[in-house]
Amino acid sequence: MPRAPASGKPRGRPPRGERNFAAIRGAEDMAFRRRILTAAAEIFAERGFATASIDEVARRLGATKGLVYHRYRSKGELFADVCEDGLRDITSRLEAIAERRDRAITRLTEAATLHAGDVLARTALHRTLAEAASGTAAAALPEMEADALSGLGALRERYEAVFVELIAGAADQRDLPAGRDTEMLGRIFVAALDAPLAWSPATLAGLAGKGGLIARQLAYFAIRGAGASDATLAEEFSR
Amino acid sequence: MPRAPASGKPRGRPPRGERNFAAIRGAEDMAFRRRILTAAAEIFAERGFATASIDEVARRLGATKGLVYHRYRSKGELFADVCEDGLRDITSRLEAIAERRDRAITRLTEAATLHAGDVLARTALHRTLAEAASGTAAAALPEMEADALSGLGALRERYEAVFVELIAGAADQRDLPAGRDTEMLGRIFVAALDAPLAWSPATLAGLAGKGGLIARQLAYFAIRGAGASDATLAEEFSR
Repeated sequence: MPRAPASGKPRGRPPRGERNFAAIRGAEDMAFRRRILTAAAEIFAERGFATASIDEVARRLGATKGLVYHRYRSKGELFADVCEDGLRDITSRLEAIAERRDRAITRLTEAATLHAGDVLARTALHRTLAEAASGTAAAALPEMEADALSGLGALRERYEAVFVELIAGAADQRDLPAGRDTEMLGRIFVAALDAPLAWSPATLAGLAGKGGLIARQLAYFAIRGAGASDATLAEEFSR
Repeated sequence: MPRAPASGKPRGRPPRGERNFAAIRGAEDMAFRRRILTAAAEIFAERGFATASIDEVARRLGATKGLVYHRYRSKGELFADVCEDGLRDITSRLEAIAERRDRAITRLTEAATLHAGDVLARTALHRTLAEAASGTAAAALPEMEADALSGLGALRERYEAVFVELIAGAADQRDLPAGRDTEMLGRIFVAALDAPLAWSPATLAGLAGKGGLIARQLAYFAIRGAGASDATLAEEFSR
């Protein structure tokens, strides 16, 4: 994060004018980082990690290559930041739902709708996350840079663990059948919500503007697949 | 397909000795093609299309690069053959189920179990098919070669259409709820069965030998998600 130069003054709160300047600089900086991450996810999703380039990301932004290299020394570093930023963002929204005091099945339904909606709204980001999980991006990198991606596995596991806990909680509260392999069910559950990642660009274009409706259909399919009764489904999806 | 040389003799059935020779040559040829396709699917799945090379496929086989180039002029041609051969094979098995005289829900259950089982048994092939569907492989190819991949889209659509028809048939026979968007349901249904493609290599390794059991769990999840009643599920999954 860039700071206003201290210019020999004692440390502490900068004078009012400088403080605002730093805040504006910081906000502009964040906005530009966000634009880079969005454009990079698009390029990674369209071309795959191996074929994508920082040049192309800069072209998509209408910025110079140097402006992007100023922040990311390599394509691997940019890929890792796209994935980490995206995973942290959706994980914090997921955890906010998981920590509520509602029944587990209600929180699971909202979590499923959140995930499916995010996949439809930010398909490029989720395709990029899927490539990170598959290991093909790491295979295309020199060993040192591949290590930078290894932390993503733990983030992804933490994310999926929230779904597994909600499924187990709903089974404890008898809103889902008991005695199931909740870990396996969680894996199937999240992958079913990821369904749009397998759809062609033409299919997705045809569904533009219907994201909310489709997210609910995906969540309904997954909650029903996990074993919710018709009475539970009616209650959860009437809200 | 190579043939024994005709050596000036009239056309027609070759003499017995030559006939056997040609048959053996043909069978060896097919076996070698199959070995190439299997190794190529593994390399494409591990590294992604853009980073994979014919060299690596040859190394995996313990064959020379020339032996592979003798059959495939380019990586794009090899990729297209892996996908087309794989899709034709599973489509013919799917159609054999779809054409039976059982109730649609029974055929749908078997089709779902077939697909999930094949994804678990030939994960590398299905990852390669997913890359073909996503369009990233075509983005990495020169335009002329990318055209060679465009036929795969139609094959994939035909495959998914079989599931959509079975879902519609099961709704007509009242084994699934009526009045649903069967095309959307079909897309979610097949993607849910593809769940293992999103699982990490470590997860898949831990499930080795349990393919049949997991295929049934996936099929159960998808059939239930599509709306089958508990009575229908009990009947279909007690076989």
